[in-house]
Amino acid sequence: MSRDARRVTITDVAARAGVSVATVSYVLNDKPGAKITPATRDRVRAAASALGYRPNALAQGLLHGTSRFIGVVADAIATTPFAGQLLEGAQAEAWRHGYLLLIANTGDDLQVEQNTLRVMLEHRVAGVLYSTYFHRQVIAPRELAEVPHVLANCYSADPRQTAVVPDEVGGGRSATQLLLDAGHRRIGFINSVEDAPGPSGRLAGYTAAIKDAGLPPDPALVFAAGHDQESGYVGVQVLLDDPQPPTALFCYNDRVAMGAYDALRERGLRVPEDIAVVGFDNQEVIAGHLRPTLTTVALPHYEIGVRAVQALLGVADGGPRHVIECPVVLRESVGTRVD
Amino acid sequence: MSRDARRVTITDVAARAGVSVATVSYVLNDKPGAKITPATRDRVRAAASALGYRPNALAQGLLHGTSRFIGVVADAIATTPFAGQLLEGAQAEAWRHGYLLLIANTGDDLQVEQNTLRVMLEHRVAGVLYSTYFHRQVIAPRELAEVPHVLANCYSADPRQTAVVPDEVGGGRSATQLLLDAGHRRIGFINSVEDAPGPSGRLAGYTAAIKDAGLPPDPALVFAAGHDQESGYVGVQVLLDDPQPPTALFCYNDRVAMGAYDALRERGLRVPEDIAVVGFDNQEVIAGHLRPTLTTVALPHYEIGVRAVQALLGVADGGPRHVIECPVVLRESVGTRVD
Repeated sequence: MSRDARRVTITDVAARAGVSVATVSYVLNDKPGAKITPATRDRVRAAASALGYRPNALAQGLLHGTSRFIGVVADAIATTPFAGQLLEGAQAEAWRHGYLLLIANTGDDLQVEQNTLRVMLEHRVAGVLYSTYFHRQVIAPRELAEVPHVLANCYSADPRQTAVVPDEVGGGRSATQLLLDAGHRRIGFINSVEDAPGPSGRLAGYTAAIKDAGLPPDPALVFAAGHDQESGYVGVQVLLDDPQPPTALFCYNDRVAMGAYDALRERGLRVPEDIAVVGFDNQEVIAGHLRPTLTTVALPHYEIGVRAVQALLGVADGGPRHVIECPVVLRESVGTRVD
Repeated sequence: MSRDARRVTITDVAARAGVSVATVSYVLNDKPGAKITPATRDRVRAAASALGYRPNALAQGLLHGTSRFIGVVADAIATTPFAGQLLEGAQAEAWRHGYLLLIANTGDDLQVEQNTLRVMLEHRVAGVLYSTYFHRQVIAPRELAEVPHVLANCYSADPRQTAVVPDEVGGGRSATQLLLDAGHRRIGFINSVEDAPGPSGRLAGYTAAIKDAGLPPDPALVFAAGHDQESGYVGVQVLLDDPQPPTALFCYNDRVAMGAYDALRERGLRVPEDIAVVGFDNQEVIAGHLRPTLTTVALPHYEIGVRAVQALLGVADGGPRHVIECPVVLRESVGTRVD
């Protein structure tokens, strides 16, 4: 069966309501100026509802020269749950303003990215969110210049280009402060080595908190490797073999903390009684379920998605660089203050 | 600056190419029957390219009575990486056929779901994928009857309704067979309690493999609780306190296996030397990074996304119920055969 054969048209609605097609059009599009009685309006709406008439949003988009779509270009949506959180935040805010998301995953492939943007522009998107699954600097594709756009969880070399990013420095400072507040004075940091705002920002925050506490920064307390469990495992071996080992560890992310837990357990050390641990990311499937559960600092991906849509639609304060706070999530791995 | 002011129209292309608007339309829409020389066609295409002309996909959709959109309704896209994998598979296949995904997250809220479907229908989607983040039976919303649709990672009570689901029974059988092949005869199963095809299917597969090996199914070897780490931790306490404890564990999923690892470690048992472990899901952030890494059975979400689009577009063999194999992923937690 052809779908067109089933489709209810405006002519069907007019016939059922006993009015002209023009009258139906006026009523359903809420056009001002036409002299149509409330009773007729009600009759038209009842007929449309009874027949299951659906207005054609493509035609309305054509009429207005733009659509109610916001395009979202993502480099990877399956790799982490974070991309999903950004999309959920963006969608919630887009709906609030009557927009739909048109989401595309490029796999970080330039050819796919160009093709994606071409199709989005042909569909007259109202704007584009260009997003990455980890916080990094990007070269924004030149097609973006054709529409309003916002970089989400990434930024470009041009400080005037609107971008929404997490506050890595503040997050690193909060994580370290938690451990200082619990009475620790030798705090190790298992960092990641990438040249990206995560490792450099969290290190800056860690160092600032240590200095503000009147402690001397000690390079022997910082170890940098990868951003996964294996690096946390190795990091513990290195930092705890120091003559003056740390009594607390700030881990680059929750995966690193998970590997650190394994190494600490092998050494017979208990968390938090013998050593306190703080993670980063709040990757719930790990942080919420390690033994003991992991105190961490959350990456605010949902909020980044919300703010990016607000910035795109021109309803956000501040800018062009929006820096979103990374909130602390307290669980069991720091323990109470021991003086 | 108004965006319309910048937009290149077909009239601009015609002026630059020195031809009529009709000629440009014929060339850019590849319409047959018009007598236009190859040289003119080249000149029109060069002019369109030089000016950065973008055809209006909304107008083309209106012309054809439908759009190149496939709507995807998802109940939760941020909860697990699996929803992302389904979306990636669906998108890859959709692009291959010239379609774009219009993705919406309903948060499993009926009101949002209805609103979502209404907007998708108004945008004349070519079809809808209705997807869930865990495999379950659903009541398909009645709006779906208005368009071609496929249930992805879920199914309805109506066996004629097209659905693409993972082979839970085959996956449970494969996991158990791995342990039988490694020489184990007392194999414990830490299952989950939900009334859903995951727990019941994996149990059926486990039981079938045990029976096929000529072994008596033993209820003392099966323990069911939740589907997270804490349940794996408790499951090990219960099953290993049996007078005849298992030498191998099949865990409902990788999260359960992660909790089981913690409990086994506390008991001083080594994986796989003292006890073998197999998971389910292939949740890479866990399975690929436990110590030792976890042998598991993969949930084929990418493939479910691919097949769902194929079924929607009528290019898939079989149906209406498509059951996708769950492949084994070999890592370190089973070890070699010990006879």
